[in-house]
Amino acid sequence: MVVNIGLIGVGAIGKVHIERIQNRISGAQVVAVCDLPKKEAETKKIAKAIGAEYFADGFELIKSDKVDAVVITTNDPAHPQYTLAAIEADKHVFCEKPMAVDPADCIKVMDAEMKHGKRLVQVGFMRAFDRGYDEVKAELDSHKYGEPLLLHCTHRNPSVGTEYDTPMAVENTAVHEMFTLPWLLGENFISAKVTLPRKQTRNTHSNLHDPQMIYLETESGVLVDLEVFVNCQWGYDINCKVVCETGELSLLDPHYHEVKTANKDSVPISEDWSDRFVQAYDTEFQSWTNSVIADKTSGPSAWDGYCASVSTAAASKSRETGKTEPINLIDCPNPEFYGVSKNKESV
Amino acid sequence: MVVNIGLIGVGAIGKVHIERIQNRISGAQVVAVCDLPKKEAETKKIAKAIGAEYFADGFELIKSDKVDAVVITTNDPAHPQYTLAAIEADKHVFCEKPMAVDPADCIKVMDAEMKHGKRLVQVGFMRAFDRGYDEVKAELDSHKYGEPLLLHCTHRNPSVGTEYDTPMAVENTAVHEMFTLPWLLGENFISAKVTLPRKQTRNTHSNLHDPQMIYLETESGVLVDLEVFVNCQWGYDINCKVVCETGELSLLDPHYHEVKTANKDSVPISEDWSDRFVQAYDTEFQSWTNSVIADKTSGPSAWDGYCASVSTAAASKSRETGKTEPINLIDCPNPEFYGVSKNKESV
Amino acid sequence: MVVNIGLIGVGAIGKVHIERIQNRISGAQVVAVCDLPKKEAETKKIAKAIGAEYFADGFELIKSDKVDAVVITTNDPAHPQYTLAAIEADKHVFCEKPMAVDPADCIKVMDAEMKHGKRLVQVGFMRAFDRGYDEVKAELDSHKYGEPLLLHCTHRNPSVGTEYDTPMAVENTAVHEMFTLPWLLGENFISAKVTLPRKQTRNTHSNLHDPQMIYLETESGVLVDLEVFVNCQWGYDINCKVVCETGELSLLDPHYHEVKTANKDSVPISEDWSDRFVQAYDTEFQSWTNSVIADKTSGPSAWDGYCASVSTAAASKSRETGKTEPINLIDCPNPEFYGVSKNKESV
Amino acid sequence: MVVNIGLIGVGAIGKVHIERIQNRISGAQVVAVCDLPKKEAETKKIAKAIGAEYFADGFELIKSDKVDAVVITTNDPAHPQYTLAAIEADKHVFCEKPMAVDPADCIKVMDAEMKHGKRLVQVGFMRAFDRGYDEVKAELDSHKYGEPLLLHCTHRNPSVGTEYDTPMAVENTAVHEMFTLPWLLGENFISAKVTLPRKQTRNTHSNLHDPQMIYLETESGVLVDLEVFVNCQWGYDINCKVVCETGELSLLDPHYHEVKTANKDSVPISEDWSDRFVQAYDTEFQSWTNSVIADKTSGPSAWDGYCASVSTAAASKSRETGKTEPINLIDCPNPEFYGVSKNKESV
Repeated sequence: MVVNIGLIGVGAIGKVHIERIQNRISGAQVVAVCDLPKKEAETKKIAKAIGAEYFADGFELIKSDKVDAVVITTNDPAHPQYTLAAIEADKHVFCEKPMAVDPADCIKVMDAEMKHGKRLVQVGFMRAFDRGYDEVKAELDSHKYGEPLLLHCTHRNPSVGTEYDTPMAVENTAVHEMFTLPWLLGENFISAKVTLPRKQTRNTHSNLHDPQMIYLETESGVLVDLEVFVNCQWGYDINCKVVCETGELSLLDPHYHEVKTANKDSVPISEDWSDRFVQAYDTEFQSWTNSVIADKTSGPSAWDGYCASVSTAAASKSRETGKTEPINLIDCPNPEFYGVSKNKESV
Repeated sequence: MVVNIGLIGVGAIGKVHIERIQNRISGAQVVAVCDLPKKEAETKKIAKAIGAEYFADGFELIKSDKVDAVVITTNDPAHPQYTLAAIEADKHVFCEKPMAVDPADCIKVMDAEMKHGKRLVQVGFMRAFDRGYDEVKAELDSHKYGEPLLLHCTHRNPSVGTEYDTPMAVENTAVHEMFTLPWLLGENFISAKVTLPRKQTRNTHSNLHDPQMIYLETESGVLVDLEVFVNCQWGYDINCKVVCETGELSLLDPHYHEVKTANKDSVPISEDWSDRFVQAYDTEFQSWTNSVIADKTSGPSAWDGYCASVSTAAASKSRETGKTEPINLIDCPNPEFYGVSKNKESV
Repeated sequence: MVVNIGLIGVGAIGKVHIERIQNRISGAQVVAVCDLPKKEAETKKIAKAIGAEYFADGFELIKSDKVDAVVITTNDPAHPQYTLAAIEADKHVFCEKPMAVDPADCIKVMDAEMKHGKRLVQVGFMRAFDRGYDEVKAELDSHKYGEPLLLHCTHRNPSVGTEYDTPMAVENTAVHEMFTLPWLLGENFISAKVTLPRKQTRNTHSNLHDPQMIYLETESGVLVDLEVFVNCQWGYDINCKVVCETGELSLLDPHYHEVKTANKDSVPISEDWSDRFVQAYDTEFQSWTNSVIADKTSGPSAWDGYCASVSTAAASKSRETGKTEPINLIDCPNPEFYGVSKNKESV
Repeated sequence: MVVNIGLIGVGAIGKVHIERIQNRISGAQVVAVCDLPKKEAETKKIAKAIGAEYFADGFELIKSDKVDAVVITTNDPAHPQYTLAAIEADKHVFCEKPMAVDPADCIKVMDAEMKHGKRLVQVGFMRAFDRGYDEVKAELDSHKYGEPLLLHCTHRNPSVGTEYDTPMAVENTAVHEMFTLPWLLGENFISAKVTLPRKQTRNTHSNLHDPQMIYLETESGVLVDLEVFVNCQWGYDINCKVVCETGELSLLDPHYHEVKTANKDSVPISEDWSDRFVQAYDTEFQSWTNSVIADKTSGPSAWDGYCASVSTAAASKSRETGKTEPINLIDCPNPEFYGVSKNKESV
């Protein structure tokens, strides 16, 4: 069986996913694409290149009989409306992160999905499919090193454009950790604090405070420090160290070759996210395709998207208040449906 | 388009490739399987599980209209006959390494393929698709570090069974380097010497001399030392260091996480070939599938298979004579057809 | 010339320093030792073993004509009184860290030293003599990577006894960073905050909250997070990462050999401080001996000891108040005398 | 007690050792220096700077009452005559490697030393005092990883001058391994073969074949490959990997800090021997000084010097004959005296 995919949003990440699905994913193909009217010409060109149908309207694409499942790679505010439409059309939907900027929209998605009766939504948190994070999680779940106590993390990009402003450090960058770290630990955050250091890099611009420090605490009391530094110049440098009672687990940027020259012994640092997480994205889409074929979605859920959204909102508020802000989650409306109890047990 | 694959030989590597094609390769599916009569029941079971047709005879499978392309994962001696049959049937064929044990059989395959008029054969040397080797090759081809002068290599397995005997260290293990190193350097070997050290590991058995040292020289005078140690116990440990005029390039076993515990800071070593090269095999099969769809095979060729076969035979002879043995290749019968001139230029 | 040293306090570190001076330091020998009356027998035994004179009273030892210079390795509260006595006797004095627990005592030492007219006091912050810290400082001072922005540090011990209580994490452990980090950056701290995580290791005891997180800010706005974890079990693990505008500098625990075995590739982690910093201590004592011979003390000064003392006191207060506490230093009473302006320029 | 040292030969390494003894070695000082008449002015200047006496004649220096012990850092051919004179004068003598170029001269030294009745000679093989080699040796002696089977070594210098010719790769460079590897393994070599690769670096000159490969075999059958590459450009890069039955032990070039910048994560490579082995030289001289004070020399002996000399001579012969040459040692004339049986037991 081949899953016929309709994809909405052919921007940077949309293009990357189209290329991925067409060339490296078993059992899936893109048969329909859609984007805003102002991008009609470009979208039609893409449609033609891959033999897909062009849709001027995302809701029409979702309803089309040609489309078995939906991939949403639009700008962030449009995520919830298309996700809700896909649920209404009884189609599996992969929505890039974040699920929604406003936690209330995440609740709407969950309500619709639970009412529908089975999971249809997977949120695009690809780190859950990264071999490094998976290995760290397996070590944690083995309990070989006791309980996790502290996390030291960095999220560094070589540089960003002038459209990237201060709030985006939390909302577009740290949101990855807002999902990944609770998934890794099997528990949620309860508070967030953002500190804007007085001293910034000269390589930022007037609308962006860079770097920023984010401090988080989990239900059980694990403390996290997370550096977000998006103009670090030296590469895409994601680090995550989990300090446990008898051992420290570190995520590694995998290296494939090493060079000794000119009095330096060096390995390359990933240049960007597509380089660092290319394999994680492939695995994510193959896993999602397989789950669609089996009619059994299992990856990051709308509940996960909700939790990340609330954490992100609390961090954003803290940046403005300068205080530690609580992360108040509703009780998970259906823990079994969202596989939440399973995670809790693993802690 | 989906390539319908007929696969001959459902042993260890055959099973791994079936799983790979069915689950992770875009544009390919296994529609027919075949193995020896004594394995009929098992083969039928596999066929049923994946919805493929069972064939009692490999030649019938190759001729079947259902089959677009052929994968050969039989035992080594059967490789040439099925490859020749696939060429006769005008079908693309992926043959696991070695192309043939006897170089004369490789020449027959080349003759048939050239007579047919286009490349149809890809030999299963997966290291050409490994990210590490590719990065080292790109560095070499950049000429940033001058000319390569020396190579220090190891090929280590944790352990082997009693069916693995002394000649297999060259013929089944070092054969990977017999292809990979010339591909990396863009030139062939001219001589081989095998030394059986007086001192062996206690973890070998009576039919296997372990470890062995293999010394090779290339056309331009690059010297290679290659350790083959197949009961090293500590893991599947492939190393390749290229000493150039102004830098040393080292292949790395990629690591995804690190653990500090009990006064050790450690990374895991791959447990076996399927773990170490899983990504290379995926890339190899995706690349081959894409080339079949494009009707333009481009990976390791029958000529590459021939060269590796002659090198392997010379090393085997050296093990018996105790002398350095020449590696006498015929002139490539059609350098353009086999893309050989391109390689030479890159040196 | 040989410097004849009188050493007061023959506990753990006193013994280590005696062994060091007698066996590995050029131009110095211990000629007099002293400790509390209750340790008379042990101290006399040590004196005899090295051919030194036993003194029952530290002040007598300091005044003795036999003694050219003084080493103070007593318990912390006794540090200032002996330092002051050495200054009065016009003798160079090496005082183990901390200079004094109470910053007021540090001021008394500075007053006496300035009144005397030349530097006589070196405080035992040995990390300024560690090759790793020195290399990081040299890189920072080169300005090759722009300005430092953030520091991520850990100070981990494998385990501590029950006499080690919660305040000691700051006063005896983090005090090293209270000196080292300002020295590294060439500027002082302005505030400190200590957080006691709700979640502790099971390997601590009832009087010790372990681990602890310390957050510091410098004059220019560099933010520091410092983990103190003194029962981490896995080794003595000191880390210091300096995030600069265009590069990250990391202190390394040097490794001298590597082992591949049992599917792990590992390097040893230092077992304790004497192992990790053995070379730094040797260099520190050789440097001090040379400076005594040249009558020109140059290492960590009483002013440095004062600054560390104030920082430590602020952190201790924060642990009790739960708030960020200011670090209010007096103006350096004689910047030229204490070489402070030079440091400032280097920032 | 202070050992008063007379040093003969104030060239490069002589100067380094004078600086070392005067500034970093406990219990030793240089009181007399000597060099050839043509260097009289320079030598007198050095003598004056350190307050030592100038001698025009090395034999007079050795006999002088002022001199307790002798350090020989002349050019190689003069090593045996001064060593013999020191033995005759009943003085401990530290002779830089090699003991002698001609093995027959080593035998003369042993004969004189044994006749004298106690060990007086230490040969300057400093790697026995390097922490990395010591750790590897301790691991080997622990037998945790079974028997050693193979060694892969490199000895690389960044560059050499035009006075360095082809034979020196063996006689001045590989001679370090000729001592170190037998010391590490506790057994001697039995054969050597040198191969001059057809392909050389462009960074060599007409009198030097560079790189060279040296293949050695030990009594028990351990095979060694040793790359000597003295114009590698990228640093002083000493590697030694010991392949054992269940583990691989690798010597490391210790790193003290790491830099991430410009898409590279790198550590520095040592620039030259004095940088890489500075600590080993310090330890070697402190150990020798202590042994002189205790009148009990214990480091690398005249027998070790003899064995290295025979191995070196065999390798040199092989370079000319192109064949594997036997290393024929005399039986150790007094194994107890030279501590040889102890080594053998440790294997």
